[in-house]
Amino acid sequence: MTTLFQRHEAVFKRAQQACETRECWSPFPEMPDKYPDAAKAKVAGLQAFEAHRAAGEFTLDQPGVTGWVGEEVSPYTQQPLGIRYPQSDLDTLFDAAERAMVAWADAPVQARVGALMEVLDTLYREHLFEMLHAVMHTAGQSYNMAYAGSGVNALDRGIEALVYAEQAMRSVTPRAQWQRRFGEAQITLQKTYRLVPRGVAVCFSCASFPTWNAWPSMIASLATGNPVIVKPHPATVLPMAITVRVFRRVLQAAGFDPNLVTLALDTVADPIGKVLVKHPKTAIVDFTGSVRFGHWVEQNAHPALTYTETAGCNTVVLESAQDLDAALRSLATTLCMFSAQMCTSPQNIYLPRDGVKTPQGPVPFDEVARRLAAAVQALTAEPKKAAMILASIQSPQTLALLKQLQAEGASRGKVLLAPAAYPHPEFPQARTSTPLMLQVTPAERDLYAQERFGPVSFVIACRDADDALAQATHDVRTEGGLTAFLYSTNEDYIARAEAAYARAGAQLTINLTGPMPLNFAAAYSDYHVTTLNPAGNATFTNLAFVVGRFGISQSRRPVAPGASHG
Amino acid sequence: MTTLFQRHEAVFKRAQQACETRECWSPFPEMPDKYPDAAKAKVAGLQAFEAHRAAGEFTLDQPGVTGWVGEEVSPYTQQPLGIRYPQSDLDTLFDAAERAMVAWADAPVQARVGALMEVLDTLYREHLFEMLHAVMHTAGQSYNMAYAGSGVNALDRGIEALVYAEQAMRSVTPRAQWQRRFGEAQITLQKTYRLVPRGVAVCFSCASFPTWNAWPSMIASLATGNPVIVKPHPATVLPMAITVRVFRRVLQAAGFDPNLVTLALDTVADPIGKVLVKHPKTAIVDFTGSVRFGHWVEQNAHPALTYTETAGCNTVVLESAQDLDAALRSLATTLCMFSAQMCTSPQNIYLPRDGVKTPQGPVPFDEVARRLAAAVQALTAEPKKAAMILASIQSPQTLALLKQLQAEGASRGKVLLAPAAYPHPEFPQARTSTPLMLQVTPAERDLYAQERFGPVSFVIACRDADDALAQATHDVRTEGGLTAFLYSTNEDYIARAEAAYARAGAQLTINLTGPMPLNFAAAYSDYHVTTLNPAGNATFTNLAFVVGRFGISQSRRPVAPGASHG
Repeated sequence: MTTLFQRHEAVFKRAQQACETRECWSPFPEMPDKYPDAAKAKVAGLQAFEAHRAAGEFTLDQPGVTGWVGEEVSPYTQQPLGIRYPQSDLDTLFDAAERAMVAWADAPVQARVGALMEVLDTLYREHLFEMLHAVMHTAGQSYNMAYAGSGVNALDRGIEALVYAEQAMRSVTPRAQWQRRFGEAQITLQKTYRLVPRGVAVCFSCASFPTWNAWPSMIASLATGNPVIVKPHPATVLPMAITVRVFRRVLQAAGFDPNLVTLALDTVADPIGKVLVKHPKTAIVDFTGSVRFGHWVEQNAHPALTYTETAGCNTVVLESAQDLDAALRSLATTLCMFSAQMCTSPQNIYLPRDGVKTPQGPVPFDEVARRLAAAVQALTAEPKKAAMILASIQSPQTLALLKQLQAEGASRGKVLLAPAAYPHPEFPQARTSTPLMLQVTPAERDLYAQERFGPVSFVIACRDADDALAQATHDVRTEGGLTAFLYSTNEDYIARAEAAYARAGAQLTINLTGPMPLNFAAAYSDYHVTTLNPAGNATFTNLAFVVGRFGISQSRRPVAPGASHG
Repeated sequence: MTTLFQRHEAVFKRAQQACETRECWSPFPEMPDKYPDAAKAKVAGLQAFEAHRAAGEFTLDQPGVTGWVGEEVSPYTQQPLGIRYPQSDLDTLFDAAERAMVAWADAPVQARVGALMEVLDTLYREHLFEMLHAVMHTAGQSYNMAYAGSGVNALDRGIEALVYAEQAMRSVTPRAQWQRRFGEAQITLQKTYRLVPRGVAVCFSCASFPTWNAWPSMIASLATGNPVIVKPHPATVLPMAITVRVFRRVLQAAGFDPNLVTLALDTVADPIGKVLVKHPKTAIVDFTGSVRFGHWVEQNAHPALTYTETAGCNTVVLESAQDLDAALRSLATTLCMFSAQMCTSPQNIYLPRDGVKTPQGPVPFDEVARRLAAAVQALTAEPKKAAMILASIQSPQTLALLKQLQAEGASRGKVLLAPAAYPHPEFPQARTSTPLMLQVTPAERDLYAQERFGPVSFVIACRDADDALAQATHDVRTEGGLTAFLYSTNEDYIARAEAAYARAGAQLTINLTGPMPLNFAAAYSDYHVTTLNPAGNATFTNLAFVVGRFGISQSRRPVAPGASHG
């Protein structure tokens, strides 16, 4: 009989190779149309999503259910999804998780790896398009992004986490024979090293991008033997409810206790986040979400370990360009992508006050700002194109923020581009907005030196090119930042920027133009979050993401009774 | 020209192999007499130590010196050492460390590994016996322990940390070429991955065992590119002052800024520990010392990373024995070793109330307790033998604790063995004490459910063998514990004990008798601290001990200008 590990061994080994070389690879087709039997899968996925809505209750056979909650509203229809989910008593979930952990932790590493590869493969084969609609109608992503960013890329990050977990565990030999003389005696000890899971992990997922962080976090905890309680944002439950159901079903079919993975739910009015973090049985917290709560978690979770990805200022420095229009087109695309509701979206664009150098001569600051705004406007003017790229706005709070920042920007700087709803061709009631672009100076730093979640960007007039780089990297260093983007034809300037951003801890993309989204982060290749600034302490994914999730307990004894008497 | 890495490559590779197999290995002779040209080295070491005393001032060419402090008292003479050390302004040390980091972080990994191997080798070749006397007259260890535990074993732990640091860094490829189609375009990116040190590390060393934790911690931080500020306990400065001087000299000779390693000093009256931990430039804290301050560090150091080793209840369970006398002799030896002033010393001995099984029939509880006390007394009755094993008492506070616990034990339990000073044959003024042994029941848990630093042990009458195991592992789980010791001839009981101690997180030694100290922890083989209970969160040493000390910053750009246009 083929084990689950054997079934997935070829893919797993190929993934190990990709993590080593960090070349481009994925076992999954990158576009929905390339999915096997795509037409049929698309129909079935939509039907599965609609079936959840029709049922109204999402059943999960987890213990301790005390009630039902559900307050999701589709950003595409602005109507409630109408799905209620079981809410379980937390102590019951923790107790069930601890019981489930015993046999799971005792299972061989390959058995866990095989079962988790099977979970990811099942998500891919049976639930990808169901997940796609669930993500669209909670997070508000476009069809293609829900497929790629929340589907196959998230699965890739899961496999990647599994590769590092297996690597970390494999580096500990399970046993050793140790022999040394003490005085006249020869002592021979047989040593056994056990990988012991830390305990119950709590995985928080966020409203706008639920699976991309949650799947690798869950896999990292589970691979190393820990059970996981998933706590989704109340606005985006369905993708994680489907996730939890699939994990439970596949783990149970593989012979394990399904309570290794359970769902903990709350409402906006009655949150349980702090209770979960401070629960005496919480051993690991994975958190993706707001800066404020993320920092609270980092400061208060002890003795639980924390893995966070929050946010910061993603910066752009535009010093000079070989092809300014191509650079501005790429920037404009990335500013618009999912209405900048990604943790990798650029926000702050630092330009020299005296303009950007090009082969045709310097282009004045005002003109660069105007042309960038025009490029954004061109992308968003036509509704069908706008829908593909901007998608929808996840939260009404984002629209309120746009309004507030537009007013502040108008009084303290200049509004380069005013936001407006655009009509979504497929969903006329969709919550939408074109981007807000503001022109400011470093005197308005309080406006931009923090993440402003949503389609907001700041074009910042700096003293000169050196000041632009210094301001940008300082803001990253102190306020956090995940990505950074540089355009320069000056190799000396590029080298200084690489060094400064490396130290500041933002992942830098240089002089990229063309159709690739500037903020595209490839699993197996791009390290996401350096951990070197306040934007988060968890890298997706590396050894540090996994090694703390287990400890090494050893026992040692003389090889044979009396053998230690020499 | 041979590089430093090449000079030490053979030893380093052999150490890598030992870390993989965890077999017994060390490049160093385990006893002082086996040191090359031992007689000469011993004389030179003593002279170097005496020269420090004669000089009265220990000069260090580090910046920002504002004054001189020194309040060490030798536990062997109970007289001040009379050495003063430079006290530097902390901001000056942090600034100098950050400046020193730049070139060090940019150096190739092999250059750092080579320089640090040279540091350890220099400590071994030129300072081992000087260090030995420095450790004796501050920590109070015996000559042999100061050589082994604070000398060669500590060097081994340093090499071990270097092996893991190099392994963790090597797992990140320095560059990759990444190629993917986006629509019609072929995008080819050259990616560069930089290992970026987290920042200034502060390394706290403790009074009774300064080098064993500090050396691997310093090496782990330095190998990954971080500078280190060393903060010794004010009672035990000299070993770390010598350490800092050697690191500075060797790193400077290798072409690096000596301010990579500096010394920060305080006094008992005017401590700087919290200031160091909360300093805005502190990025890493390594702490060995008291439970109270260790937990404060764990809770308050954020955003700095912490690596702690504090203490807990080290437990013994005695269920049955093939040779009870041999077991009791080994236990007695380990209870006496350095007057139980080691983080691995056993403290709580859990016995079934109805006695311990032996091939000759059950031995009643009272008799086992009495025979164990007699074995301890036998070891300590003869001053020369006592001096070899008990050495001296580092702190007068320990004598006060013995007095207090003897009184409490007499009123609430039974004093099995009363402590008394013994006359040290070489140092008549030495601060010494034979062990205090108390007999109690679990009703006196408040007396023993915490580390009682020094030669104190509790023989605890439990309901039965299962209760003994349950009590012991529960105390470890909740109060912390590093080591555990089990005697049983029942394989089923052993298996249950292994599982329970693995989960509780204490490193278990089973049925060991003979001349090897039960709590001997071998570098490259024994993992010290599981991180699974409150006794510390740092394992000496594994990948988790090193991977957090650096982040991965990447930059990526199209392979050739315009190549991204496909």
